[in-house]
Amino acid sequence: MMHLDSDSVAARIHAQNIAPGRTDAQAPRPGGSAYLGGFRAPALETVRVALVGLGERSSVQLEQLKLIPHAEVVGLCDLRLDALQQAAAICVADSLQLFCGEEGYERMLTELKPDVVIISTSWETHAPMAIAAMEHGAHALVEVPLGTTLEELWRVVDTAERTQKHCMMLENCCYGRDELMFLNMVRRGLLGELLHAEAAYIHDLRHQMQSEADWRAAHFAARNGNLYPTHGLGPVAQYMSIARGEDMFDRLVSFSSPAVGRAAYAEEHLEAEHPLNGMNFRCGDINTTLIKTRKGRTIVVQWDETSPRPYNRKNLIQGTAGTLAGFPTRIAGAGVNDGSEWSLDAESLYAQHEHPLRKRLGAIAEQSDSHRDGMNYIVLARAIDGLHRGEPLDQNVYEGALWSAVSPLSEKSVHEGGAPQLFPDFTRGDWKNTAPLGIVE
Amino acid sequence: MMHLDSDSVAARIHAQNIAPGRTDAQAPRPGGSAYLGGFRAPALETVRVALVGLGERSSVQLEQLKLIPHAEVVGLCDLRLDALQQAAAICVADSLQLFCGEEGYERMLTELKPDVVIISTSWETHAPMAIAAMEHGAHALVEVPLGTTLEELWRVVDTAERTQKHCMMLENCCYGRDELMFLNMVRRGLLGELLHAEAAYIHDLRHQMQSEADWRAAHFAARNGNLYPTHGLGPVAQYMSIARGEDMFDRLVSFSSPAVGRAAYAEEHLEAEHPLNGMNFRCGDINTTLIKTRKGRTIVVQWDETSPRPYNRKNLIQGTAGTLAGFPTRIAGAGVNDGSEWSLDAESLYAQHEHPLRKRLGAIAEQSDSHRDGMNYIVLARAIDGLHRGEPLDQNVYEGALWSAVSPLSEKSVHEGGAPQLFPDFTRGDWKNTAPLGIVE
Repeated sequence: MMHLDSDSVAARIHAQNIAPGRTDAQAPRPGGSAYLGGFRAPALETVRVALVGLGERSSVQLEQLKLIPHAEVVGLCDLRLDALQQAAAICVADSLQLFCGEEGYERMLTELKPDVVIISTSWETHAPMAIAAMEHGAHALVEVPLGTTLEELWRVVDTAERTQKHCMMLENCCYGRDELMFLNMVRRGLLGELLHAEAAYIHDLRHQMQSEADWRAAHFAARNGNLYPTHGLGPVAQYMSIARGEDMFDRLVSFSSPAVGRAAYAEEHLEAEHPLNGMNFRCGDINTTLIKTRKGRTIVVQWDETSPRPYNRKNLIQGTAGTLAGFPTRIAGAGVNDGSEWSLDAESLYAQHEHPLRKRLGAIAEQSDSHRDGMNYIVLARAIDGLHRGEPLDQNVYEGALWSAVSPLSEKSVHEGGAPQLFPDFTRGDWKNTAPLGIVE
Repeated sequence: MMHLDSDSVAARIHAQNIAPGRTDAQAPRPGGSAYLGGFRAPALETVRVALVGLGERSSVQLEQLKLIPHAEVVGLCDLRLDALQQAAAICVADSLQLFCGEEGYERMLTELKPDVVIISTSWETHAPMAIAAMEHGAHALVEVPLGTTLEELWRVVDTAERTQKHCMMLENCCYGRDELMFLNMVRRGLLGELLHAEAAYIHDLRHQMQSEADWRAAHFAARNGNLYPTHGLGPVAQYMSIARGEDMFDRLVSFSSPAVGRAAYAEEHLEAEHPLNGMNFRCGDINTTLIKTRKGRTIVVQWDETSPRPYNRKNLIQGTAGTLAGFPTRIAGAGVNDGSEWSLDAESLYAQHEHPLRKRLGAIAEQSDSHRDGMNYIVLARAIDGLHRGEPLDQNVYEGALWSAVSPLSEKSVHEGGAPQLFPDFTRGDWKNTAPLGIVE
């Protein structure tokens, strides 16, 4: 079973992440490499797309790619023949080629030379596959997280800078209706000076333990920290223009709760001989991490996939003039009222502050992806559009690396009893001259 | 003005709290002293009450004391004659004596020999006044916090143990309707194994800066941390039976946001020559502190009196079987549903799980204190009743000290860039044999 195959991988990731001494020593940028903060690649009339890792996520993506202008799916890759066949059935392209088995990915990159690869495999393979794609001349669009160790993340950054390829983490939640609107409202100055944010991924996913393909189980068994921080964190980092001229993550501290829920769930729902029964899950049911930025702002980042709690990404951004929050959508201050009460009138906010991107793509996005607000369509459409037009993508490689770095850093802080951990600066200081995200029409 | 008088005091508190090296070294308990975990003092037929610090809080207390059986107000003390006269006008006791001026408190303790003193003065005088009360043979009921430095808190504990007097911090929010009910529900086992809690005191009190008596301003100017943690923290510590047999605070980490709101408010709302204009406020607008318990549970504690945000104490307690939260009152899991949605049906919870104390005292409590749920009546009535009957009080001196210790420890963590700070064990290990809080009829 997959979770047993990858067990030793997760254990190695954990050992690397808690190793004494800094693991992210910042070397000078090698000669021949160049910073990619506002990187534009040559425009592509048609964007030839290959996908690797064909599960639930990619089946949605394949449907959406049919609706996205200038995208042509040219290759599919997976270890499992049945997954390949199911995915191929979704596609229409005559020229589609399928690649199976351990060497399939390398062959796809070499033989097809796709313009871009969408990587939707298990966490521990994201970074190696992104690196391989760029080495073969392809841009990489990577499901979250971008990598699982600081070394990996540095290798991703260095490879992108050397090969001059895009490596965008597909943080879909940055394209949620509220997230786009909040970005708009922050840019309009409605919150005053930004002070504090709260982000979370609270999503009861214990049912995944009943799946044969639960590769996450090995991570829950071997690691302890916030292993999946970016769905909540990415949007608030964008509000604060982190790594884009205005501010930068400085350090974090992290505590995990006891690890109880996974073992209890396995005992209650799985057969006695199931390999997850009796597994020693180390990862605390809920992790809370605090980030401090160089401007002194604070961000709470929580992660809980194990408890019977309602889905929540928090999405709270607080400034001197008011606060916006999600789940449910609400606002206090910011000209709407004196701040002493929440206004829950989301429709009024949408009417005034809907993001132009959402206005333009909202209808097709919701139609193609109704269960998550259309965000999955927009993130993909926006990336393909940027590649087609030769424009910068919305999330540069440094943001993906920085947001993903919360996992290894939180593992180390948890392991060291809450000791503060400094963020590496993947931009090597160049974030100060990088323009803020400018997604407008 | 008072805030200028106390400015140097707050600065000394801050210097003491951030001093290098541990300031809470635990000495052996002196001979002649005894642990007070389940302490009972001799019963008192009539409880002769004196009050010091006559402001908004004590005027409510004086009204409530008229309704509380076995309480007799015998003395009032303040620095200000007009405050004394206003407070005296509320009272009915023929034997009431008034004490004014700097030596008034010492004279009141010596001449009146009250059974108990209620201390509602400025933060920095709570501990010295409680110590003086106990030295003169009186029990002490102290508004929050119990003290502002670890040294002070140790002196309070040691004095109580030596004099064998009660020293109860009046954490009124432990008697909120929801807090009592949640305690009841936790005790009934509805949440399963407890894992995590969230507490806060988010209350926009910037308007206090317009008051002549804003002694808090000096603390905002000189200190930086969570200076007022107990309103949210006390109740969740009770749910977890912290310092009562089950668990203990182990350590905390803390970050504060930038300090912006107070200076901006002063500039906008106060005259140009007002002393708060141009004051350098150091205390971050919102502080977030993470506590780890010895059982590994996590608690988020937030404090913000400076931002235009709705009042919130969070009051979230999460277990393996479900989560309860406040503001608004809600529940997920715990037999009500599968955890995937919040149920907001508070009335149904009250119908099933209302705490017996609230059932008995709720009507009179709300009548006497409608603006905060009746909690202020119940905390006082419950303490007087315990003194009358010679029973343990609900919050022992160790809990008051432990909850209040978050302030100095968070100041030190903020000062040290988020470094973890260990909690002192004010019980000297005796918490392990202390019974859980048992407030039932």
